Amino acid sequence: MSDNTFGRLFRVTTWGESHGHALGATVDGCPPGVAVSEADLQHWLDRRKPGQSKYTTQRREADAVEILSGLFEGVTTGTPIQLMIRNTDQRSKDYGDIAEKFRPGHADITYWQKYGIRDYRGGGRSSARETAARVAAGGVARQVLAALVPGLSITGYMVQMGARAIDRARFDWDQIARNPFWTPDAQAAADWADYLDGLRKSGNSVGAVIEVTVRGAPAGLGAPIYGKLDTDLAAAMMSINAVKGVEIGEGMGAAALTGSENADEIAMGPDGPVYSSNHAGGILGGISTGQDIVLRFSVKPTSSILTPRRTVTKDGENTEISTKGRHDPCVGIRAVPVGEAMMACVLADHLMRHKAQCGDD
Amino acid sequence: MSDNTFGRLFRVTTWGESHGHALGATVDGCPPGVAVSEADLQHWLDRRKPGQSKYTTQRREADAVEILSGLFEGVTTGTPIQLMIRNTDQRSKDYGDIAEKFRPGHADITYWQKYGIRDYRGGGRSSARETAARVAAGGVARQVLAALVPGLSITGYMVQMGARAIDRARFDWDQIARNPFWTPDAQAAADWADYLDGLRKSGNSVGAVIEVTVRGAPAGLGAPIYGKLDTDLAAAMMSINAVKGVEIGEGMGAAALTGSENADEIAMGPDGPVYSSNHAGGILGGISTGQDIVLRFSVKPTSSILTPRRTVTKDGENTEISTKGRHDPCVGIRAVPVGEAMMACVLADHLMRHKAQCGDD
Amino acid sequence: MSDNTFGRLFRVTTWGESHGHALGATVDGCPPGVAVSEADLQHWLDRRKPGQSKYTTQRREADAVEILSGLFEGVTTGTPIQLMIRNTDQRSKDYGDIAEKFRPGHADITYWQKYGIRDYRGGGRSSARETAARVAAGGVARQVLAALVPGLSITGYMVQMGARAIDRARFDWDQIARNPFWTPDAQAAADWADYLDGLRKSGNSVGAVIEVTVRGAPAGLGAPIYGKLDTDLAAAMMSINAVKGVEIGEGMGAAALTGSENADEIAMGPDGPVYSSNHAGGILGGISTGQDIVLRFSVKPTSSILTPRRTVTKDGENTEISTKGRHDPCVGIRAVPVGEAMMACVLADHLMRHKAQCGDD
Amino acid sequence: MSDNTFGRLFRVTTWGESHGHALGATVDGCPPGVAVSEADLQHWLDRRKPGQSKYTTQRREADAVEILSGLFEGVTTGTPIQLMIRNTDQRSKDYGDIAEKFRPGHADITYWQKYGIRDYRGGGRSSARETAARVAAGGVARQVLAALVPGLSITGYMVQMGARAIDRARFDWDQIARNPFWTPDAQAAADWADYLDGLRKSGNSVGAVIEVTVRGAPAGLGAPIYGKLDTDLAAAMMSINAVKGVEIGEGMGAAALTGSENADEIAMGPDGPVYSSNHAGGILGGISTGQDIVLRFSVKPTSSILTPRRTVTKDGENTEISTKGRHDPCVGIRAVPVGEAMMACVLADHLMRHKAQCGDD
Repeated sequence: MSDNTFGRLFRVTTWGESHGHALGATVDGCPPGVAVSEADLQHWLDRRKPGQSKYTTQRREADAVEILSGLFEGVTTGTPIQLMIRNTDQRSKDYGDIAEKFRPGHADITYWQKYGIRDYRGGGRSSARETAARVAAGGVARQVLAALVPGLSITGYMVQMGARAIDRARFDWDQIARNPFWTPDAQAAADWADYLDGLRKSGNSVGAVIEVTVRGAPAGLGAPIYGKLDTDLAAAMMSINAVKGVEIGEGMGAAALTGSENADEIAMGPDGPVYSSNHAGGILGGISTGQDIVLRFSVKPTSSILTPRRTVTKDGENTEISTKGRHDPCVGIRAVPVGEAMMACVLADHLMRHKAQCGDD
Repeated sequence: MSDNTFGRLFRVTTWGESHGHALGATVDGCPPGVAVSEADLQHWLDRRKPGQSKYTTQRREADAVEILSGLFEGVTTGTPIQLMIRNTDQRSKDYGDIAEKFRPGHADITYWQKYGIRDYRGGGRSSARETAARVAAGGVARQVLAALVPGLSITGYMVQMGARAIDRARFDWDQIARNPFWTPDAQAAADWADYLDGLRKSGNSVGAVIEVTVRGAPAGLGAPIYGKLDTDLAAAMMSINAVKGVEIGEGMGAAALTGSENADEIAMGPDGPVYSSNHAGGILGGISTGQDIVLRFSVKPTSSILTPRRTVTKDGENTEISTKGRHDPCVGIRAVPVGEAMMACVLADHLMRHKAQCGDD
Repeated sequence: MSDNTFGRLFRVTTWGESHGHALGATVDGCPPGVAVSEADLQHWLDRRKPGQSKYTTQRREADAVEILSGLFEGVTTGTPIQLMIRNTDQRSKDYGDIAEKFRPGHADITYWQKYGIRDYRGGGRSSARETAARVAAGGVARQVLAALVPGLSITGYMVQMGARAIDRARFDWDQIARNPFWTPDAQAAADWADYLDGLRKSGNSVGAVIEVTVRGAPAGLGAPIYGKLDTDLAAAMMSINAVKGVEIGEGMGAAALTGSENADEIAMGPDGPVYSSNHAGGILGGISTGQDIVLRFSVKPTSSILTPRRTVTKDGENTEISTKGRHDPCVGIRAVPVGEAMMACVLADHLMRHKAQCGDD
Repeated sequence: MSDNTFGRLFRVTTWGESHGHALGATVDGCPPGVAVSEADLQHWLDRRKPGQSKYTTQRREADAVEILSGLFEGVTTGTPIQLMIRNTDQRSKDYGDIAEKFRPGHADITYWQKYGIRDYRGGGRSSARETAARVAAGGVARQVLAALVPGLSITGYMVQMGARAIDRARFDWDQIARNPFWTPDAQAAADWADYLDGLRKSGNSVGAVIEVTVRGAPAGLGAPIYGKLDTDLAAAMMSINAVKGVEIGEGMGAAALTGSENADEIAMGPDGPVYSSNHAGGILGGISTGQDIVLRFSVKPTSSILTPRRTVTKDGENTEISTKGRHDPCVGIRAVPVGEAMMACVLADHLMRHKAQCGDD
């Protein structure tokens, strides 16, 4: 991963700022002959789109994706696919106060320290709005996966909001699409609704943990030592705005286990090895085992909050800031489709890498 | 990061297997004129070397590094630096049983699934022995950092063994070098000694959490969006054998915080901004703030244990395995210098990247 | 260089087809604070624009570039710069015959063989129209060079059309902009005008040799062994449509020289070494010497000609083809600004690479 | 291509200096299960080895390659293959004079300008001795090609020495291995023997043109726009020491042709398209057509000659130099196996890239 491009064979380059003319992604290296349409991609973009419920920012963006290149008669040609999303509701004036002051916990100050440029328009390039481009690119990756590995599915969902975790005993895949938090625990959804409403009204925000599970992934994906599947997934998820931790399988909890507890015992099944458990999260030595791939990442609370915080101005004066813009009380909600998109892109990339080195002729 | 190379400008390519002739690292892109000697690198290798205490594998390897190229009259020339470590104590016969059976939780089975090759000699390329090459390369990176950023220091230490975490109130930097666990909490060291001795005698193993802190890092390192400093660090740490989770600053715990709690408030100090706290772990928007960079990673328990576990053979027969080789009861101990080495390499790389894009002429 | 991206630090990704909605380039890694405007870029695009004289294709394209991202208040921000050029005069019907038949000497057939897709609309991605994106990106590179190396100039010009070479004794820098062939030899320009008119009327085409000279380049650019300055320049020029050969300094003619003839003798001048000659073309061991960098490339004749040629259809039937579209009788003319643009991009990239490895702190 | 690594999927990193302990290559990304032995590689190294005839340097190097990693039971494992060649006949004292003075036409001065280091031991990293590592790596690539494309052959040969070109009418594939110049024209070989003997005795040197032909290459290799097959080949050949020009098919001569002359007409044959000619050199739009791939490169005369030339010292004093070491009167001879090796590596890389994007599942 480097600057604004990720992936080695299925390569995505994103561009654009929160309040510029447009933003987008160039998908390069895509296999030819894969069916892709604007509607296919829009389906996923609509899940990330702001203003869907009172729990996300009230900024109104259509987030309509246009495919400018790389398709011919409805299928990919093998040449770069340009995906563009125009910005329509910039309303830059909302950010007046921010033009001079840095938000604590926000990238405002580090972009200024690094580049000497203060693009105050909604966070500029550091805005989570960039993730729309990832979701569009992820939609292309999903079409590739559908063509190459028909049974594979990628599902993201929230497993913790603030200190409130779901109860795994109530886990229900069918609940995920039925609540604004993409959580598989209906009771947690109800609880969180009240909790987040309170935070939202007080102008505060809160963090979350997102889990992404891949079912039907083939064994053999991943290129040790530095192109391990989990290495690339860790990078992919950590690159998402506000993410501060990434876990595979047992994750940080693996520290607490003994070797005998942690061993996923193996037996021979009709279609290959089957495992007694999945502490590994479907990856051993950086290569997929064929079990479910299970990954989690934490999202910190939005830094744009009403509560006044001490900070400094661009000119180095001490001051206070209280951010009045239209922000997400729990940005983790909209990180769910973003995590899925990154997973799709990494898998598409690794499928191609595996084919190159180990595929049959 | 890709296959066996990591870094974009300060690039490290490692090679070699656990029980082959030798292993090593090629360091490419190093600035010229930096003083580097075999003794400089050996210092760090000796920290990772097996057989140092009863808590690490009893395999006896000198881990003596030879510099085959890239130096002239004691300084780097700007051309590739080849670092070679010969294997001396291979004792392949120890691994007889493993030649046919897969260890649960080990990369044996996935390398077989991916490559169709069963290099049973001590795990082959998937062995943690590969990390010696990283430590040697990290030694070069440390010399570069010493030349470019004099005040910078990198310190790794263990903060949790099994379920037993250190008490932060007892944190003492000076303790780290004084116990076999590289922990800053002397009391934890004593407690872990007993605990690990018991596990070792019973042929079991346990996980750990390692923390790495960088003091004196400059602000401005990191290249958003996909070359963020934390993105590259997450990848670097996740690529280490047995690592299952990576955290920056509050890490997974960031989920439990509200925006007002998580904000590191800013005030103007004599040398630039100062912060009331460091929830961010020294990185905002993927760019270093100038605060301490704080990172943690979990290491799962070694999968080579005496306790018999169900598994399958290469030929697909169900069986049991109990591994009698010379293994680490807590491989996390030797992961401490490896984590430091990866940190050094990532920082050297990002310093060069920053200089390229934003440096003065 | 890989697929649709070139450069390592100053990275350009181009996208788009001849007859799609638009085409463009993403410039990533650009230093911040560099003044760039659409007018700056348009200046160079207008030189490549079709329909400027009767010697280039009569397709009418405004080739107006829009900057969609990466600027703030007139300067670069260090984030990706998206450059888009809309297609306006596609007139796809001109290409009716080509939809089924392959043009001898054209990429039609190999794209079909590789991808199994027949995007007949004006050559699709293989069209020389793609080079507009390079020229736009080269305009950004020129601004970077102007900021970093004030005295540097890049000048491309035609030194041969068909078998007719210029007379070096008549070389006059001031003539280059005064004739439609960008040639420094006024007499050759007059001669070529007649010659090309004849070819154009008969529906034939002809090749050319372009030379690019860089004056004021600093010594020290280039990263041996595989990132040599001449290596990257050879790749950059060979990637241009229709280019079949690249030469540095004496080029292919170096074969005919003896060692004593080829040696550029060195003496000490007031500002460093001065050379008795420049057989090397300003590059030794892949690193610039500080002399003029001199490079040539050949451009084959356009394959779209009126003269009937035997060929096959998509379905494998033998047939004949005669191409009636609006094509360039000597596409080498419009390759001049493209060669300059590639040179600018490679130099900007190597300046940044040199700064990273060898720059002062 | 970047610094000391080339290739995207079949990746070669070379290291080492002319007079250091050893030099070598790391081959990463190689498909697993390919038979490779030291004897396979030695076969090609022996062709490049110095001291084979009176027409090459009299330095005596065994150039014995050792495989340190990446093989198990005689086949590749998919992990990095380390190839090491020890230096045995360094005799550094030969270079005494060179320690202080720069050879005109040699990389001595630019390495000094770039890195500020003067590794005078036989040219250090810039020595053509580095090409031994390429030939070893090329040997691995040949094994991969033999496994993937059985009928493919790569043959390099000299077509011009000084101003003396072969007569194509006398071209005989069988002659190539029968003379010290690897030329297909027996009469040219006899002529060159006398010519070069005279140059050698007078302490002078001369340039050459090498041609490399690939027979049996499949159609479809190459990844436009910036990863074209000819783009990568141009870079690969230009990276070889002393190369100043690269041509594909008609090369620089394409400029002199008209469109009707240059068109390789197409007809349908029993196994796909057949062509009336091969002006294109087997590549159209950057993708192989299935015809022979034909490439040429020029090699300038060795700069280490007895004839005294004016130059400067490291300290900036004007002086003269006359090089008395053991040098090649026509270094182009030993460039033949190097050109073949680079061709093999580029083809192996592109076969894997093609398989990744367009291969069947």
